[in-house]
Parts: sequence; structure tokens; C-alpha cells
Amino acid sequence: MRESVFVFRVRYAETDQMGIAHHGNYLTWFEMGRSNLCREWGKPYASWEDEGVFLPVVEASCRYKSPARYDEELSLRTSVEQVKPHSVTFKYRLYRGDKLLAEGKTRHAFATPDGKLIRGGHPLIRWLEERSTEGP
Amino acid sequence: MRESVFVFRVRYAETDQMGIAHHGNYLTWFEMGRSNLCREWGKPYASWEDEGVFLPVVEASCRYKSPARYDEELSLRTSVEQVKPHSVTFKYRLYRGDKLLAEGKTRHAFATPDGKLIRGGHPLIRWLEERSTEGP
Amino acid sequence: MRESVFVFRVRYAETDQMGIAHHGNYLTWFEMGRSNLCREWGKPYASWEDEGVFLPVVEASCRYKSPARYDEELSLRTSVEQVKPHSVTFKYRLYRGDKLLAEGKTRHAFATPDGKLIRGGHPLIRWLEERSTEGP
Amino acid sequence: MRESVFVFRVRYAETDQMGIAHHGNYLTWFEMGRSNLCREWGKPYASWEDEGVFLPVVEASCRYKSPARYDEELSLRTSVEQVKPHSVTFKYRLYRGDKLLAEGKTRHAFATPDGKLIRGGHPLIRWLEERSTEGP
Repeated sequence: MRESVFVFRVRYAETDQMGIAHHGNYLTWFEMGRSNLCREWGKPYASWEDEGVFLPVVEASCRYKSPARYDEELSLRTSVEQVKPHSVTFKYRLYRGDKLLAEGKTRHAFATPDGKLIRGGHPLIRWLEERSTEGP
Repeated sequence: MRESVFVFRVRYAETDQMGIAHHGNYLTWFEMGRSNLCREWGKPYASWEDEGVFLPVVEASCRYKSPARYDEELSLRTSVEQVKPHSVTFKYRLYRGDKLLAEGKTRHAFATPDGKLIRGGHPLIRWLEERSTEGP
Repeated sequence: MRESVFVFRVRYAETDQMGIAHHGNYLTWFEMGRSNLCREWGKPYASWEDEGVFLPVVEASCRYKSPARYDEELSLRTSVEQVKPHSVTFKYRLYRGDKLLAEGKTRHAFATPDGKLIRGGHPLIRWLEERSTEGP
Repeated sequence: MRESVFVFRVRYAETDQMGIAHHGNYLTWFEMGRSNLCREWGKPYASWEDEGVFLPVVEASCRYKSPARYDEELSLRTSVEQVKPHSVTFKYRLYRGDKLLAEGKTRHAFATPDGKLIRGGHPLIRWLEERSTEGP
């Protein structure tokens, strides 16, 4: 499975009074992983939107195994788990060094700029499918 | 199932360039639902922390059915789905009027202020169990 | 000076590891104050955008006098300080009970949906001017 | 004036329905600039807190000159403008390439972990003063 690796640091604003990164930020981090994947694979997500395809999130989940803290350098490994005619599922694993901190998934629909679902095959769907299976 | 209802409006800062509320905010809204539930049921979450019990999120999920938009008034229905000796699961349903916009769950561990898990029975766990089954 | 009062509670996600509400949130709170003011005065901000007028922030400032904490109920008093042909300045005072926690200002331009500045008089500017000086 | 340069990309979650980066994020970006400065200059901010010194924001301001957009690579130039016995002021300039997008300042007090102000000279204050004037 081809992966895209994104390295970043936990922001102070992302901590909460428990002294750890707030769990809500992980979905935003996953989104950075998707942005990085699309850019690395040759088609930035901004250009998808320019061509009239949006990827609204229809389902998201995360398992938090160990907390992340302020200023820690984390690496997020993003991959495409499944491409279907009307949705794509991304998978995420968040690490601090070798330690797995969290795992998650997001499923996305393909939609037009005004929010209508695109069913049954847009060229960009094929692109995603091909890129996710080819070697790095 | 006893529910706590929290009414709020979507903030402008919570929208993204798709013109809808960003999916990451829903976990923060669910957290407001939990805060409201604890306050309504007679024991604000801040007082839990004062007594040395924290509820870190160990699992979270959300299904997004229909988007929410800026300034819309939403109502979030929060309930306790399951209480176990070492974890509690909350359930959330987000509505605009009668329309169900999203459904989600969060599972929480019971932890000490320094992050150690509390297993097997804290008085607050019993409180949560009792309150979730009694009538409104 | 006519004021709009908005009451809200500090979210857990808004705290940081210092144990207080993170200073970045205050600009978002001020924005809620503006939304509430426009709604209360009879013209929700969403309808401004529908009519093709956006109010991008061109300047913002805040003085933090005393911290706000999780779940505290705060009241934000928002008013229009100055209306000019090409900008409007809002003023904010944030209270917990009688205690003033913070004061701030934001200055906004009037812009078209594609970001061009509107100079010299749009009907909505006059509306804002009139409403800000009339009695409550 | 010694500067610290931090390069980052605008997150999708940081955009709003105006299609630009929401103005509230700039204060969080400035905070990343401070974190980066302390790390680069040899004393990560986390170690300040470990030694019992916190830097709560007492004043913040920003002038927004031109919008930032999703996925743009921005560079933030952070410097120490003034060190006083009881406060420090940081200055920020945000660029996309050569274009100045925003300028800001934050003033911070020195405080103990329980929020009491530290007046008149902590070793870390001297460190900040020395480092800010020496060559890169």
C-alpha cells in the first residue's frame, strides 16, 4: 500500500487543559495528510476543486492510543484504503518515532461545487485508484 | 434513554471554503454536548476534574448525513450509551429542526490527572450509570 | 452607544495546557458578537453576504486582562465604534459577571464576493450607521 | 534584528466560507513562530514551562493586508521587539513569497504556573534579551 508521510509539530493552541493535544485536532491533521498525499502524488487537492470536484467527509473515525503533546514532532502516514464509484476511504496512522499514537479513517463522497453527489466515475476517481496502487 | 439537548449556532470560523461547517468541529460540538449533559444532570465536568477524574477520548466516530451552515441553529441530543468499569460511551445526534444532520459516538477512559487509567469502579462512574437511566 | 450582548460558555477545546482559554479564540468570540449584533438589529450577516457584501477583517486587536476558564459563562458586549465610507470598526468588551476580562476591536472593509473593495457607500453601510446610533 | 523564519502551509480547516484563511488563525500562526524561535535559539518553550515560567498573552494585534488561501506556502518572520522586566513583545511579518500578507505583535507577561506575575528579572528574560540582539 502506497503511503504519503507528513511530518509536523503539535501547536500550543492544539493542547487543552488536560495537557495533551485535543482529540478534535486529529481530524484536521488527517486532512493535512490528504492534502500532502494529493500534492505528492502530483495533483494538489486545490486543483481538484478547480476542476469542480469536492470531497466532503461522510464518515470519520479515530482510535486514540497514546496522547500527543505540545511541540512533539509527529509523522502521519496516509494511504488510500478503498476507491468505489461514489466514495473513497483514506486511512491514517499517526506516529511519534516508532510509537503508534492513533489510527483513523475518513470516507468521502465526490460532489459538485453546489453539493450534489457525483456517481459513477469521474476521471479523478480513476487517477486516485491508479496512484494508490502504483509503487512509490 | 435519557437525553440532554444543547442548542447552538454554527460560527463563521467553523465554516470552510466548501461553504459548510468543517467536519472537524463536530467532535468539539459533541464535547459541548457532554459538558451540557454533566451540568444538567447536576455535576459539571469541571467538578469531575477537581475530584481527580479525567475522561480522555479513546475512540470517536461520526457519520455526516447533511451539511450544517453558518449561523444555523442546531440542536445536539447527547446520551450515555454504555457505562463499563473502565470506559463510558456517549452517543450524539445533531439536528436542524427535524432533520438529522449527523450521528456520532465517543468512548472515554477514566484517568487520573497524570494520565493513569482508573480501572474498576470510581464513585463517579456509578453516578453516570444511575443518572443515565433515570427519567428526566 | 447601542450594544448587543452575547452570552456563551468557554468550550473545553478552547482551553490550552496553561489551563485557560487560548487567546486565539477571542477573535472568534468577537465574530460571534458581530453575528449576534447583526441578527439582533434585524439583518443577519448571512443576508449581507447573500446581497453581495463581505466584511473581511483588515485589523484586529485585543487586550487580555484576566483569563477565562473552561465552562465559565461569559458575556460579550459588542458595539459599532465607527462607520466610514470604506470601513467599519466594532468594539468588544468581554465580562464574567462584573469583571472585565478583555477588550478588543476589529476593523472591516466592505468587499465584493470576489474580494474587491467597495468604496463610497453601499446601502448596508448606511443601515449599520443608523442602527448603531438609535436607542435599544 | 535577529529573525526566526517558519514555513508552513494553510490548512483546509483554516479557510472559511469567504474562501480565505480565517483571520483568527493568524494568532495561532504567530504562536508557531514563537515556538520556532525559542527552539531555533536553543531553548524550546516547553522547557521554559518546565522551569516554571509561562508567557500568557496580554495584548495582541494584527493588520491583514492581503488574504492567504488554502495550501499556500507561507513564511512567517518572528523577532523580539522589546524586552522589559515584566513583559516581552514579539513582532511578526507573514509573507507569501515576497508579498507581505500581514503584520502583527503580541505582548506577553512572565507568570508562574498558577498565573501569578513574575516581576523584575528571571534568568530566562535575560536569555531572551541576549539572544534577540546577537547575530544569526
